[in-house]
Amino acid sequence: MTLTDETPAPLAHERLTTLGAALRTALDGPYAAERAVNRATYPAEGSLRPVGLGVEESRDWTLARLRALDEAGFGSAGVPERAGGHADPLEAVLTFETLAKTDLSVTIKSGVQFGLFGGAIANLGTAWHHDTFLPGVTSMELLGCFAMTELGHGSDVASLETTLTYVPATDELEVHSPTAASTKAYIGNAARDGRMAAVFGQLVVAGESHGVHTVLVPIRDEAGRVLPGVTVGDHGHKGGLLGIDNGTLRFDRVRVPRRMLLDRYGGVGEDGAYRSAIADPNRRFFTMLGTLVRGRVCVGGGGSMAARRALSIATRHALRRRQFPAPGRPDGVLLLDYVVHQRRLLPLVARAYAFGAAQNELIGALVHVQGEDESTERDQRELETFAAGMKAMQTWFANRAVQEAREACGGAGYLSENELTALRGDVDIFATFEGDNTVLMQLVAKALLTDYRHAWSALDRSGVVQATTRAVGEMVMERTAAGLMLDRLASTARRRPEETTLVDRGWHAMMFEDRERHSLESLARRMRAASKSGGDQFEAFNRLGPHVQFVARAHMERVTLAALVKLVDACEDAEAREVLERVCSLYALSSIAGDRAWFLEHNRVTAARSKAIGDQIDALCRELRPHALALVEGLGIPRGWLAAALLED
Amino acid sequence: MTLTDETPAPLAHERLTTLGAALRTALDGPYAAERAVNRATYPAEGSLRPVGLGVEESRDWTLARLRALDEAGFGSAGVPERAGGHADPLEAVLTFETLAKTDLSVTIKSGVQFGLFGGAIANLGTAWHHDTFLPGVTSMELLGCFAMTELGHGSDVASLETTLTYVPATDELEVHSPTAASTKAYIGNAARDGRMAAVFGQLVVAGESHGVHTVLVPIRDEAGRVLPGVTVGDHGHKGGLLGIDNGTLRFDRVRVPRRMLLDRYGGVGEDGAYRSAIADPNRRFFTMLGTLVRGRVCVGGGGSMAARRALSIATRHALRRRQFPAPGRPDGVLLLDYVVHQRRLLPLVARAYAFGAAQNELIGALVHVQGEDESTERDQRELETFAAGMKAMQTWFANRAVQEAREACGGAGYLSENELTALRGDVDIFATFEGDNTVLMQLVAKALLTDYRHAWSALDRSGVVQATTRAVGEMVMERTAAGLMLDRLASTARRRPEETTLVDRGWHAMMFEDRERHSLESLARRMRAASKSGGDQFEAFNRLGPHVQFVARAHMERVTLAALVKLVDACEDAEAREVLERVCSLYALSSIAGDRAWFLEHNRVTAARSKAIGDQIDALCRELRPHALALVEGLGIPRGWLAAALLED
Repeated sequence: MTLTDETPAPLAHERLTTLGAALRTALDGPYAAERAVNRATYPAEGSLRPVGLGVEESRDWTLARLRALDEAGFGSAGVPERAGGHADPLEAVLTFETLAKTDLSVTIKSGVQFGLFGGAIANLGTAWHHDTFLPGVTSMELLGCFAMTELGHGSDVASLETTLTYVPATDELEVHSPTAASTKAYIGNAARDGRMAAVFGQLVVAGESHGVHTVLVPIRDEAGRVLPGVTVGDHGHKGGLLGIDNGTLRFDRVRVPRRMLLDRYGGVGEDGAYRSAIADPNRRFFTMLGTLVRGRVCVGGGGSMAARRALSIATRHALRRRQFPAPGRPDGVLLLDYVVHQRRLLPLVARAYAFGAAQNELIGALVHVQGEDESTERDQRELETFAAGMKAMQTWFANRAVQEAREACGGAGYLSENELTALRGDVDIFATFEGDNTVLMQLVAKALLTDYRHAWSALDRSGVVQATTRAVGEMVMERTAAGLMLDRLASTARRRPEETTLVDRGWHAMMFEDRERHSLESLARRMRAASKSGGDQFEAFNRLGPHVQFVARAHMERVTLAALVKLVDACEDAEAREVLERVCSLYALSSIAGDRAWFLEHNRVTAARSKAIGDQIDALCRELRPHALALVEGLGIPRGWLAAALLED
Repeated sequence: MTLTDETPAPLAHERLTTLGAALRTALDGPYAAERAVNRATYPAEGSLRPVGLGVEESRDWTLARLRALDEAGFGSAGVPERAGGHADPLEAVLTFETLAKTDLSVTIKSGVQFGLFGGAIANLGTAWHHDTFLPGVTSMELLGCFAMTELGHGSDVASLETTLTYVPATDELEVHSPTAASTKAYIGNAARDGRMAAVFGQLVVAGESHGVHTVLVPIRDEAGRVLPGVTVGDHGHKGGLLGIDNGTLRFDRVRVPRRMLLDRYGGVGEDGAYRSAIADPNRRFFTMLGTLVRGRVCVGGGGSMAARRALSIATRHALRRRQFPAPGRPDGVLLLDYVVHQRRLLPLVARAYAFGAAQNELIGALVHVQGEDESTERDQRELETFAAGMKAMQTWFANRAVQEAREACGGAGYLSENELTALRGDVDIFATFEGDNTVLMQLVAKALLTDYRHAWSALDRSGVVQATTRAVGEMVMERTAAGLMLDRLASTARRRPEETTLVDRGWHAMMFEDRERHSLESLARRMRAASKSGGDQFEAFNRLGPHVQFVARAHMERVTLAALVKLVDACEDAEAREVLERVCSLYALSSIAGDRAWFLEHNRVTAARSKAIGDQIDALCRELRPHALALVEGLGIPRGWLAAALLED
């Protein structure tokens, strides 16, 4: 492989293989230019927290680092500086992912301050809030908290107990935590740095509850002293993200002026009456939560960056480290020449490409909804479902990939100087925060079921009595360009499935579509049966839990394959494209292999063909082995951003 | 469930349910009395390291705690105090597992000092070494290192580069690290506390190498100053086990008297000539390493204790925590009432029971070989294989269980005060040290292949030309009482497999046996073909890597099932036995479900039956749900030993 200067110019100091550069461009996709600029301009020096800092030092370091980054233009991107100011969702997401390529405490601190606190003000507030508070948010003079989660109500936002009661006599809101369970918990910026909190609670006006709303509550004075009525707890040491000062907040009848209520979707008028442009409380609730979708897009993408970082370290190590001499290899065999080792790392690398492609699609959807385009409520709802699924899939993947990378580096992987264990600790909680993954996957399945029901009733209304299940499935599944491309491939294979090879993209597409469609249909059937059954309704639905998870995963895998196929199709470099075709096959076959039992049970594959999948995966690993370095270069973590000691000579 | 005082008397302060007490007795099995005494006498107070200590403070705390434990009789158990002294392997293993129920740094520090350093002297040394050094080892006046692993040679002990060269002129051994790769690495007690090291290297006498031997080398003086010629490095902060001072050791022509060589199996005589009772260098090498088997038995068992601790915390939490109201459950549903949550935790609890049963068998085998009994070389070899497999299976399991427990506790699981993240960090490296798990599983498969070949040739010699594969398989597999019991069950089911239910023990036995036998036979066939093929021998075998791992796992699962069946059979309490039958089914079906694809591909199960497995697992979880508290009580971690804040009111 020949070395070349990377384009664009600013990254001339990073030397990539030609293939690596082409793969990187392909994976960066529609945002290749922006990402290249971020890589070139990001002040990577000093971006990793020194090993072994305690809790307080980690918090100090993280805050200082975020301030420096904010000054360098890698902080408040995406938050407008005032009412009517420009807030570019693309810039926000790409900034977040750039940060996530280095220290995750800094990344999450930025998410808390700009994404959540700033995002709540920008999205739920109105002009006065914007003008009054956003300048302080973006300059980091006003550090804030996003106080949603309560001790007793982790994933169940609708059940929050905190009350925001309007007091007509003084035209104030009284913020109150009536029970220990209503204590706000796991709140970033609460334990130390925050001066103000966006507090979520039930808005009560004239004795009537109007559901969850958000109010800004000062919690500390300028000197950092906790204000009267506010009780702050410190979660202290955690499994990772030591740089974030997570804590608890409890309010004892704290009063704030009425205008502190973020009242874009509902508030209290000067007459002291509740008013909202959205009459249906349920719809209002989901509209408010919906504006927070960007956080999930960011966290999912951040998870993938952590995975890429870990896979870059482990793969580069496996290209240097030798163990056990063998015939013809007296100096020992390179780790990456062991089939077992290839099987450990390369399918994860392929999956990192697949999620990269899907994340590009998700970013596109976010920009469409939150950017300058016209968009519909359906677009918003689809974005939320997509974001929920991508957050869950990518953060689970990150945990798995970082752990596998750690083990693949053996004892060296356990030393903090090699970065993997800190990464592992940091990324762990990604599976839980911004929505517990299992709960998010339920949202995905629910959305699919809703679409499915709508499709049925639409066909029904149109008089198509013989509406085939297939037609319904198609209406649900293939709305995007990528989905349509995949469906065309599947249709081709469906004509003569027995003639396809194991690396036939049409066959992959068919298998992925069949898995989703069939499991969704049978879930819909079981749901109907459950709702009609007498007895304990909770238990009837409860039993479908594992099926619900399967459907959501099948859907996300299919959407991911569609995105990867589209990305490969868009690749103009012949050599890179050939490699990416194999990456795509490796992703597809690994996914099919994982559900081999399902495909066999549902007669989608013969025993003989199923048995051959493992060998085909081995063959793909073997074919990709010579391109391993280029593949991790393509993942977009510059070598200079990896400080792992084991990569030094 | 009624509460009862636990027997024996000393644990009267722990209140268990009747069922929990019976399950605990059953799981403790043949060692119930010893384990009860350990639980009753272990000084549990102060057994958990304060959260958030830095590296140096953690090391201080760990050393002090180990000294206190040693004084309380929970330290040097199993190490004789002098030549001819008593060294009870059972006491050693049970002490280690008791420690592993609390802080793992202390546990591993004890393993380094007593098991590895003390064990090397006891097992590889002779009377002079014993009398001279063991008193200091057991009293902890002489802290020592086990310096085997080298930077360049993690799992490949035969390739160690360190040389131990006999110097006739001064009757000394010269210990030398010729290359950077020969630096001893990851050595516990090296960075700070150790005064002496048992150094493994190639013994060179009169220019001839006699393979790996071990020599005692002082590395620090009484005041803790590093001795001339020794270079010590500090690995510093790690992903866990912060209390262990892992470091590197490098030797620059360090001289020690000849008698410092641990020469039980080979040494240099007064005449300066090499002598050994074991002529074959290869056999000598494996004999020496074989004495170290106890460490693997301990580490595997320790992994299981960490898993039990985590599962105890998560299950007890899931019995207190409510989320989301549901019809008939206005206060919210208990986490453990969600099917998805049951599926997360209960199969892992079942697996903890299964490994507990198998570990009891392993301890029995260790006591047989290292205790007072007569034992054969074959017993020793079987013990090593069993220990290798159990170490890999249990430590992988521990990582999975602790992580699942962390996620099952949500955000609270991430707070250090709830113990799970520290446990996760500590147990991570268990999959790598004392033999990398993947390499250990290769050893298991190799041993099975060797037995398989021997069985064939024995049948061959005996004139049984038509030796059926099945007969060979049986000769290999069913040598233990537990194995024979399982085989009888399988034979019954084999007569009418179609009439068995999914919880029929005979059907489980048949499935486990078939999986192992068939995959072993096909591996043997492929191995033969590979050895006969022309071309690159390494590549030919390399491709069998995933198959090798599958066979080893299938074997360990079968051995584990056999042990669990035996344990259930031995349970005399009717209620406990009924629960254990379900635990056994849940273990068996979870294992079968994980390899459902394999069973379908090999025509061992119909699609319809395979599809029904998931529902049967759900049903077993539902049936075990009311006994969840008793089940974790049975795991043997006293409630008082769990300090997790989330279990407090």
